[in-house]
Amino acid sequence: MAGPRTRQAHATETRELILSTAERLFAEQGVAAVSNRQISEAAGQANNFAVGYHFGTKTDLVLAIVRRDSPSIERRRMEMLAGLRGSQTLRDWLACLVLPLTEHIASLGSPSWYARFIAQATTDPALRQLVIAETAVSPSMRAVTEGLERLLPVLPADVAAERGDMSRHLIVHVCAERERALQEGATTPRATWEGAAAGLIDALAGLWQAPFTPTD
Amino acid sequence: MAGPRTRQAHATETRELILSTAERLFAEQGVAAVSNRQISEAAGQANNFAVGYHFGTKTDLVLAIVRRDSPSIERRRMEMLAGLRGSQTLRDWLACLVLPLTEHIASLGSPSWYARFIAQATTDPALRQLVIAETAVSPSMRAVTEGLERLLPVLPADVAAERGDMSRHLIVHVCAERERALQEGATTPRATWEGAAAGLIDALAGLWQAPFTPTD
Repeated sequence: MAGPRTRQAHATETRELILSTAERLFAEQGVAAVSNRQISEAAGQANNFAVGYHFGTKTDLVLAIVRRDSPSIERRRMEMLAGLRGSQTLRDWLACLVLPLTEHIASLGSPSWYARFIAQATTDPALRQLVIAETAVSPSMRAVTEGLERLLPVLPADVAAERGDMSRHLIVHVCAERERALQEGATTPRATWEGAAAGLIDALAGLWQAPFTPTD
Repeated sequence: MAGPRTRQAHATETRELILSTAERLFAEQGVAAVSNRQISEAAGQANNFAVGYHFGTKTDLVLAIVRRDSPSIERRRMEMLAGLRGSQTLRDWLACLVLPLTEHIASLGSPSWYARFIAQATTDPALRQLVIAETAVSPSMRAVTEGLERLLPVLPADVAAERGDMSRHLIVHVCAERERALQEGATTPRATWEGAAAGLIDALAGLWQAPFTPTD
């Protein structure tokens, strides 16, 4: 007879299996396309309500996937920030936007699904605000934003917001496309995640320093 | 009794209704999430095979949606190119990447679905290459690429490919996010499509002129 310890270990295993399965299905098909029932089935759960039982609603499940990876990304960014010591070099701060994510994805090996999952979740009408809030408004992200503001020319609030959105699009979709290409064995502009990160930091430096057209 | 002319007009109307319905459903839910049967039902077709009858496979349907809008975008870009007369100004050429699309979307009124449809179709594993080939490799796009190459410092092929991908991500996802925000009545960084286009051209100028890190 299974004791409480074993039952708890089993539940943890099931939760982990559901998270991985859901992340993969969401990454491949989009969040709206996949039902909790499909996830339960794909995760080999005899009970079609396994997702609901372990996680609640689909929103809860999506946030649980985000929160499985975000501590690793957040820890990497905090460590990078601690090493910056008030650097006056723009690329150092932009690296804090990019490397914590690319290094995390690289650490997952291929195939990974996290970048595509984030790309899908941040374009889902029902979930995007929640997922952006979880991934782009963390304490470490606030510190990076403040560091960048000290080094950049003063931008009107709307231009700063626009460039923030653009940075997010670039980072998320370059990583998602690269992750997909790696899985498919397709060619990628850069051979390594390190190279892709360098390309992103170059692009963000250009984007943030570009002269701007004021709003009419 | 309906003559051949009336029957043809009816078929054209049905095709148009199916295209609009499919574009909206794909934009909202992603291409993989929506079946031909769902589109037929949402378009009020009594026959669940209406999509297959009028368009063939889902790939054929997606390409038919792309090709409904691309002539307008292509025509706008050709007209802009004709006005450039070998301009030596980078922004003039970058404008040819951005304005034909933003002006087309603006001409559709709100809610429009085209930008979100393109964002979904270019992240669909099965369709992305086809859709990118249709939208990013047209005759007018080749002319823009050649014009940009004349004005930009020589970039290694991998960096040029990387920045081409990044430009596409920026344009597609900024437009898709703005289109969604307009429909939802949410705030947008820029008040008009013209302003959003100016912001994109600024960003692309920065991105393409940024110093680059060579591949390791």
